[in-house]
Amino acid sequence: MALPKKIVIHELGPREGMQIEKNPVSTAEKVRLIDLLSACHFPEIEVVSFVNPKWVPQMADAEQVVEGFTRAPGTRYTAVYLNVQGMNRALATKKLDVEGSLSVTASETFSKKNTNRSIDETFVETAKRVEAFREAGVPATEVSVMAAFGCNYEGDVDPKHVIGLIDRLLGMARDNDLDIKLIQLADTMGWANPLAIRRMVGMVQDRWPGKRINLHLHDTRGLGLANAFAAMEMGVDDFDSAVAGLGGCPYAGFKDAPGNIATEDLVHMCGELGVETGVDLERLLDVAREAEKIVGHPLPGKVMRGGHLASYRRKAAEQPQPA
Amino acid sequence: MALPKKIVIHELGPREGMQIEKNPVSTAEKVRLIDLLSACHFPEIEVVSFVNPKWVPQMADAEQVVEGFTRAPGTRYTAVYLNVQGMNRALATKKLDVEGSLSVTASETFSKKNTNRSIDETFVETAKRVEAFREAGVPATEVSVMAAFGCNYEGDVDPKHVIGLIDRLLGMARDNDLDIKLIQLADTMGWANPLAIRRMVGMVQDRWPGKRINLHLHDTRGLGLANAFAAMEMGVDDFDSAVAGLGGCPYAGFKDAPGNIATEDLVHMCGELGVETGVDLERLLDVAREAEKIVGHPLPGKVMRGGHLASYRRKAAEQPQPA
Repeated sequence: MALPKKIVIHELGPREGMQIEKNPVSTAEKVRLIDLLSACHFPEIEVVSFVNPKWVPQMADAEQVVEGFTRAPGTRYTAVYLNVQGMNRALATKKLDVEGSLSVTASETFSKKNTNRSIDETFVETAKRVEAFREAGVPATEVSVMAAFGCNYEGDVDPKHVIGLIDRLLGMARDNDLDIKLIQLADTMGWANPLAIRRMVGMVQDRWPGKRINLHLHDTRGLGLANAFAAMEMGVDDFDSAVAGLGGCPYAGFKDAPGNIATEDLVHMCGELGVETGVDLERLLDVAREAEKIVGHPLPGKVMRGGHLASYRRKAAEQPQPA
Repeated sequence: MALPKKIVIHELGPREGMQIEKNPVSTAEKVRLIDLLSACHFPEIEVVSFVNPKWVPQMADAEQVVEGFTRAPGTRYTAVYLNVQGMNRALATKKLDVEGSLSVTASETFSKKNTNRSIDETFVETAKRVEAFREAGVPATEVSVMAAFGCNYEGDVDPKHVIGLIDRLLGMARDNDLDIKLIQLADTMGWANPLAIRRMVGMVQDRWPGKRINLHLHDTRGLGLANAFAAMEMGVDDFDSAVAGLGGCPYAGFKDAPGNIATEDLVHMCGELGVETGVDLERLLDVAREAEKIVGHPLPGKVMRGGHLASYRRKAAEQPQPA
């Protein structure tokens, strides 16, 4: 299949990155990172999560971060929340694009570790959330399956199990008159490979040809961009990523594991493949380098070190070339 | 095209890694790295380069390194050299598998910077080398084009130019009755992407269907494994790589010193795809971690941090699973 002309990139660095950092990052620096990203023209930036500060102390200042940043036109500013209380905190800021998602984890063990709920309990909680979406007028257009390719606790995940979970979420959405447009498949612990991506994406496309697919990929074992490329060739045009490769999951059972695919590396790959992103890569590379200063340690993004090929092409064009 | 059943991996870490390290690595540690790699069952390990110590002081102890390591059965131990003098040093060790290669760089500027010779001067030098191969009884079965996908000084490289260079090298080989089996395409500065790989590999396959192709890939911009996967789907079954991604240090500000793709990440990807490598991944992951200690700083390999999926599968299988 031909590559898409254009893809949509959801920038998660401020949320997914900051929630895992061991060293404290000041509220001002979190705000600065969001404002720097705003200048790169993302359709969406996920800025914070509204979760219990007892479990994620790094997000205790979520309200202050939201108060601090400056909205740029053309960008949606979103937040993650795991229950109705979190949704209400997001709404109370009156500054965010609060959106609803029907989300479940494909692994029973990881579900319990990550959210303290079994899969069935998650469906019960999701029903409550759907009710809350309706009451609050929050649009819910997405279903999501985490650990959709494998789990550090349970091993490989059967794609049919994932299809079953999506089916159940979409049934719940239908029962509540929600118009779901997007199906997210999250490779939360970096288990996917290009063949697994093709199989899983193909099964979802066959079953629900009218829905758009989003991939949330982690680069845990270096296959992030290979997986993104394989997905794009299947027609997937919607991706999550985090500037400089910020992120990782605090409950995935390993230390020092790489986070999301690095946004600037994804944008760079797309540029080389002739796929538009709308993102200003020159600026984003500066933000990636700034992100390393903000967290105070090296981050895994490659292009910020290897250099933007366009800049080498420019320099080469300016040089007198040998005959 | 179906993926190959098995690929051949040439381990370059000891040579390509050590020649770029700024901190001195002792001869004993270099020997230790080679011996550790020997236990992983590679068909080839490139152990040193015989180059002028004035330019590459890190390789001044090449003879001592060769003397120190222990050959394992089933592995070829090779060296890089750039002229007849270097070849004679390799032969004098009486311990290496000295092989000849007819090699040229696709970029005029990089050729001069890297070897102090223009492309035409390289062909003149190669003619002398071919003569020396004959006299010394050194088998020459490979032609190689460096910077075959692009150059930081000259920008994109026209695949037709690369085809022309291969043609010229193969002509020289034919004139000297050399039986060339392998065509190496080296992405020396990390310019390739999966579409460029398909185009270039396809052109070489169309023109010389009987020759095997080797890819020497750098992960400068994060596309190394995506490129390797794209190549495997074209039938390429011969790759260079370096344990832990040695060959460049993204964490020490060597902006223009990109590392090779990390061997253990390539081996891991192959395992997930059902492609055999013959390499012992468990051992190799230990060597990758040891390589970081030997050079004294983090290296870019991912699986050594993210963890071998097979080990997670094993642990998961031992756990009582939720119903």
